[in-house]
Amino acid sequence: MKLQWYSTLYIYPMRNVLLLFLFIPTLLTSQVSQDSAAFFIREVYRKSYTELKAYDWLTTLCKQVGHRLAGSEGDTKAVIWAQETLDTFGLDRVWLQPVKVPRWVRGEPEQVVMYSNDFGAVTLNALALGNSPGTGRDGLRATVIEVKSLDALRAIPDEEVKGKIVFFNRPMDMGHLSTFGAYGGAVDQRGRGPRVAAEKGAIAAVVRSMASRLDDHPHTGTTFFDDSIATVPSVAISTNDAELLGKAVAAGPVEVFIRTTCQMYPDVQSFNVIGEIRGHEFPDEIILVGGHLDSWDVGEGAHDDGAGCTHAMEAIYRLVKMGYKPKRTIRCVLFANEENGLRGGREYADQAFAKNEYHMAAIESDGGGGTAQAFGVSAGEGKLLDVSLAHLSDAAALLEPYDIELKPGGGGADIGPLKPKVGLLIGLRPDNARYFDYHHTHIDVLENVHPRELATGSAALTALVYLLDQYGIGQ
Amino acid sequence: MKLQWYSTLYIYPMRNVLLLFLFIPTLLTSQVSQDSAAFFIREVYRKSYTELKAYDWLTTLCKQVGHRLAGSEGDTKAVIWAQETLDTFGLDRVWLQPVKVPRWVRGEPEQVVMYSNDFGAVTLNALALGNSPGTGRDGLRATVIEVKSLDALRAIPDEEVKGKIVFFNRPMDMGHLSTFGAYGGAVDQRGRGPRVAAEKGAIAAVVRSMASRLDDHPHTGTTFFDDSIATVPSVAISTNDAELLGKAVAAGPVEVFIRTTCQMYPDVQSFNVIGEIRGHEFPDEIILVGGHLDSWDVGEGAHDDGAGCTHAMEAIYRLVKMGYKPKRTIRCVLFANEENGLRGGREYADQAFAKNEYHMAAIESDGGGGTAQAFGVSAGEGKLLDVSLAHLSDAAALLEPYDIELKPGGGGADIGPLKPKVGLLIGLRPDNARYFDYHHTHIDVLENVHPRELATGSAALTALVYLLDQYGIGQ
Repeated sequence: MKLQWYSTLYIYPMRNVLLLFLFIPTLLTSQVSQDSAAFFIREVYRKSYTELKAYDWLTTLCKQVGHRLAGSEGDTKAVIWAQETLDTFGLDRVWLQPVKVPRWVRGEPEQVVMYSNDFGAVTLNALALGNSPGTGRDGLRATVIEVKSLDALRAIPDEEVKGKIVFFNRPMDMGHLSTFGAYGGAVDQRGRGPRVAAEKGAIAAVVRSMASRLDDHPHTGTTFFDDSIATVPSVAISTNDAELLGKAVAAGPVEVFIRTTCQMYPDVQSFNVIGEIRGHEFPDEIILVGGHLDSWDVGEGAHDDGAGCTHAMEAIYRLVKMGYKPKRTIRCVLFANEENGLRGGREYADQAFAKNEYHMAAIESDGGGGTAQAFGVSAGEGKLLDVSLAHLSDAAALLEPYDIELKPGGGGADIGPLKPKVGLLIGLRPDNARYFDYHHTHIDVLENVHPRELATGSAALTALVYLLDQYGIGQ
Repeated sequence: MKLQWYSTLYIYPMRNVLLLFLFIPTLLTSQVSQDSAAFFIREVYRKSYTELKAYDWLTTLCKQVGHRLAGSEGDTKAVIWAQETLDTFGLDRVWLQPVKVPRWVRGEPEQVVMYSNDFGAVTLNALALGNSPGTGRDGLRATVIEVKSLDALRAIPDEEVKGKIVFFNRPMDMGHLSTFGAYGGAVDQRGRGPRVAAEKGAIAAVVRSMASRLDDHPHTGTTFFDDSIATVPSVAISTNDAELLGKAVAAGPVEVFIRTTCQMYPDVQSFNVIGEIRGHEFPDEIILVGGHLDSWDVGEGAHDDGAGCTHAMEAIYRLVKMGYKPKRTIRCVLFANEENGLRGGREYADQAFAKNEYHMAAIESDGGGGTAQAFGVSAGEGKLLDVSLAHLSDAAALLEPYDIELKPGGGGADIGPLKPKVGLLIGLRPDNARYFDYHHTHIDVLENVHPRELATGSAALTALVYLLDQYGIGQ
């Protein structure tokens, strides 16, 4: 049918000039564009699934760089590796954006030992919480009181808490549909629990790991203090050990010995690593795609957030390698210091505001390397989410064959500071069933990332960046 | 708004009698039912995610029963275990349906050695293909010819194939969006390749494993012969070894030595294991939910199809434990001998037809224990798929919060024979990224199934059985 129609035009060119002019806009911008966009995305998926570039880069990042907490030697190695890798992509520009980051050092392996009449002396699997102070070389030992929530702790008279070790032991509720929901419902114990314990006179805090399984892996993570209160040493213990400690406390008085030598040092220099292709039509409209380059100082930061970095890298790599000439400026940003400071994301936004840059969309991948399922979308200040989602309905339809949906609500920690001057904030949502098995542990390693699952994220990000560049956001 | 409307009814009851009667059917069967159905499904998910029953059963099946090829000792143990387990659920009836199954025995570990000038003698990781004959105790050795397709083999003159070993070496094309597509595009080499080789006078066949990764695990599986042609010994080798053998053949003449002692014995007795709850309103309309209990004789049959069996078991278990009284008869069927005969599925259908049973829907889970993504739906003979999909649109909407879609096209090997007299044939579609890493190998073991991913399948099946029972299929 289509061929025949073109033939008619060819045979009677003059007679059809008017008709041709009438149809050209439809042909070029709607039907043909939708078809060619579908074809382009199919090629993106084919290449992502067969070349598995993100997995190659993740292998190097995990096995040659390793973990890379802000301010550590690994952090420096990661920055150099990322810049050198982006330099091979043929981008218009690759640069380092200086960021001052905290330097927290774990020190010697943690010693945490439980003493109880019923169970004897048991060494617990523990990791100090990020940013927490050490106990000093002699360690400390005190009686444990167990609570299931911050409110439960607040309800206990201060004199009963003073001099004790507070043990936060509320499990993640795995009945949530998303493990992120389960995490969100429990993580106040780690984030704010030690501070409340300190306020009430406790000398240390022990937190049940934020973990989706019963196992022996402690999960570290940041705990928040502020300068107005004295801080206390804080450790996470594995879920199996939390069960044991809970049983011991229920059976009678329990003391715990904690020895940590972690310490916060003065800020040091790190960098956001950035690469971009300039847009040829709207160069001042930026589409950012990123993850955070730092990780905790255990494991290899494979899911968190090596996966997100290599997703973002593959998105910009793939577009360049496919010869795509973007209308808008596409920028890959690998942020510094998400884990224990968010300094990279803040500095990036400060610089963007200072230069009066407009990010039409900022997309972050920081949910691990599981199978991509959706993008969560939020609007920047002064923008309307519904307007953009309606505008993007044709684009969204092109993602349906890949089981990718655009859903309201989402973003990412590092792109969050852009909110006052951004079109859309978007977060990739991978399958999260396994994520909190590995999160912030010794087992967040390459072997727990699947190459093809990782590729689903690369392909989805590439397709979304392409579609946003093609369609804009309608406001 | 809704509350106000009810108040009006309450204040002026007489005036609104007619109005009330007009609205009651809508209220009771649509809105209220939709709300309570949504609540019920949310509870199904909560319980599936927190209790992880399927994983408990799968642990027993994998670690205490182990692998269970039709007619083997493991098969018998599996039947006994399944019956005893279903007996604890409080079903109306649990029974064994006799099925005569083939008994193919692998015998001693395969020996496959490649001899080439460039690479020397290299032992290859190999598994005999199911149903294939052995080489005899002395083994056989011959020159290898490599082909990439059955057509390529057919194009070679018979005299060049005679006395040789044919090596089928076309990789799965991982550019497919589904690994099942990649598998489907390559598996003719294993299923029909050896037969074509035999027809052309080859004395054995070596097949590149149907695998999604380059690794050292050979993948077994059935190869089809028929009685009219002489059969030849056939083995699968790992993908890494297929790469090596391909390189060796390209470099110069290669011989391969094969020694397998596998053998087909006379049929023996096995059983489909069946449990059901009788419907209280339409007991003659059966909703079947099942998987296949047999597995290959390596690994533990964890994904294939221990996952499917425990999915189906949890569906009927969950409905009973939640006190649900079904309108229709719900039947859990664990089929015998899917892998190398399909005798269980055929016998089940024969018996159903003989008793004139009507299966309103038959649902199979045989795609592994990954995160549930969709149900593929096909219509039975004389039924219209569109009619049922339209009828089930409200039901499908209730699955959206769980990222489960009803999609056209699907079913399962064991339920396929029901097609002449079934309403709908439905197959669960889990995430398939990892499936062909494990399929038919030594590493299809419990450790490669994730408890929460498995639970997504249990919950989805339970919800679907419930919705089909509530809504029917509209024809």
